[in-house]
Amino acid sequence: MAGAEEVDLARAEVLAANDEFYASVEAGDLERLASVWAAGDLAADATCVHPGWPSVVGREAVLRSFALILANSPYLQFFLTDVTVRVTGEVAVVTCTENILTGVGEDTAEGGGELTGGRAMTVNVFHSTPRGWVLWLHHSSPVLGHVESDEEG
Amino acid sequence: MAGAEEVDLARAEVLAANDEFYASVEAGDLERLASVWAAGDLAADATCVHPGWPSVVGREAVLRSFALILANSPYLQFFLTDVTVRVTGEVAVVTCTENILTGVGEDTAEGGGELTGGRAMTVNVFHSTPRGWVLWLHHSSPVLGHVESDEEG
Repeated sequence: MAGAEEVDLARAEVLAANDEFYASVEAGDLERLASVWAAGDLAADATCVHPGWPSVVGREAVLRSFALILANSPYLQFFLTDVTVRVTGEVAVVTCTENILTGVGEDTAEGGGELTGGRAMTVNVFHSTPRGWVLWLHHSSPVLGHVESDEEG
Repeated sequence: MAGAEEVDLARAEVLAANDEFYASVEAGDLERLASVWAAGDLAADATCVHPGWPSVVGREAVLRSFALILANSPYLQFFLTDVTVRVTGEVAVVTCTENILTGVGEDTAEGGGELTGGRAMTVNVFHSTPRGWVLWLHHSSPVLGHVESDEEG
């Protein structure tokens, strides 16, 4: 069994990897994003579900999907809430609520485009590797306004 | 390292647990469903995201959310496709496409209600316990028609 200190360290590392994932998307930096995602043996089943999308499977397809999203998003910012981390051996499962601020429309010299907000429920599964924790599965789903939540009762 | 036979056995057990989850929902059997879900130490962070919903956290809240869904669904049937299983130590991650057939409207002596189809992308995380693999996290997200898929390249 891993000691409490080891578990705390792993949790901190996983949270740092999770933060780096969102920071690289916010920065629109595909190279940084590529280093976050699983490679090598884990590349083939790297899996990504963007809100409202079907699955995208495989490292290259996943990175292409982000390139497409970044190309169509002049602005993206994430405020994470309800972050939980479960570390079990080589796998870590992070759940969080992504509160997303996106830019829509053209950002011109006269002024920026409009901003809109959205919310997505997310699970990120990380895998431990010699080069640290890498993102193996990202699944983000839209919260639809017309569906009643059972959370309160 | 676990041998190939052990891994195959674990994969088969996880798939059986995954099948039992869907069978219990189809049967509308809350007791069966309760025995699929994580209990004990794992109960507090059992997490469920129904398509379009915010997260439901904790075993009791999760089971209540299913009771609500089952009460409002005269008919539910799942056809799973694209099933993948990753077993790493005590955690197993299943991804699948849920092709869902639901009954809408009243089922009367004169005839059944209408059936509608839907599709959801799902990740199910199972945890190994002395009583077998239990469902720890279920995250199912709607595939929205108006979003273009990048799957085809």
